[in-house]
Amino acid sequence: MQRNAINLAEKFAKFSEHWSPRVVAEMNNYQFKLAKIKGEFVWHDHQETDEVFIVIDGAMRIDFRDGSVELQQGEMFVVPKGVEHKPYAEEECQIMFVETRGVVNTGDAGGELTAESDVWV
Amino acid sequence: MQRNAINLAEKFAKFSEHWSPRVVAEMNNYQFKLAKIKGEFVWHDHQETDEVFIVIDGAMRIDFRDGSVELQQGEMFVVPKGVEHKPYAEEECQIMFVETRGVVNTGDAGGELTAESDVWV
Repeated sequence: MQRNAINLAEKFAKFSEHWSPRVVAEMNNYQFKLAKIKGEFVWHDHQETDEVFIVIDGAMRIDFRDGSVELQQGEMFVVPKGVEHKPYAEEECQIMFVETRGVVNTGDAGGELTAESDVWV
Repeated sequence: MQRNAINLAEKFAKFSEHWSPRVVAEMNNYQFKLAKIKGEFVWHDHQETDEVFIVIDGAMRIDFRDGSVELQQGEMFVVPKGVEHKPYAEEECQIMFVETRGVVNTGDAGGELTAESDVWV
């Protein structure tokens, strides 16, 4: 049976939009997604799931109401469910993140940055 | 509130044993684990969960009964639940993998490579 590795750099090369998550893998009911981010996202939370961020290239910051965390390439962070956060990247940053299937990127906040939640690349 | 990024290189620097998974993060009931692997693991499967492999440094191969997949740095693969597999690395390889909490590394196969399932680094 033919099986192929999922190459993250090849997947990133296939899209350019910011804040537009692309699913690359599913594990049980969890999805591994890639995104290119730049600038400021919206404050939001996910009531139903923790959210993992892994920086693949570049650097980002996650703001919280009571602080922030800086993530460089090769670093990760888990945002606990229900905790308001706002991702930010000064320069374009490539991230992988993990959520349960069906999670909306802006949580309950909505707005123009809300993306379709199940677009594969 | 003080929050710290999880730096994968720093975590890898803290242990040297092969086939000895270390937990670095939890997301809901899932664990993100690091391992240094070299040589041949045992044939096994996990009846209760898919398993994600991500190569952080080096290269590995996952053998299946009907084929195999090669993974280089920056590549990932999802082994479906119940599918027998045998990880292999010719040279030491640093991987991150994701499983549900409590999964035993050798599945039902057991043997001397069986490691404790909840050791953090």
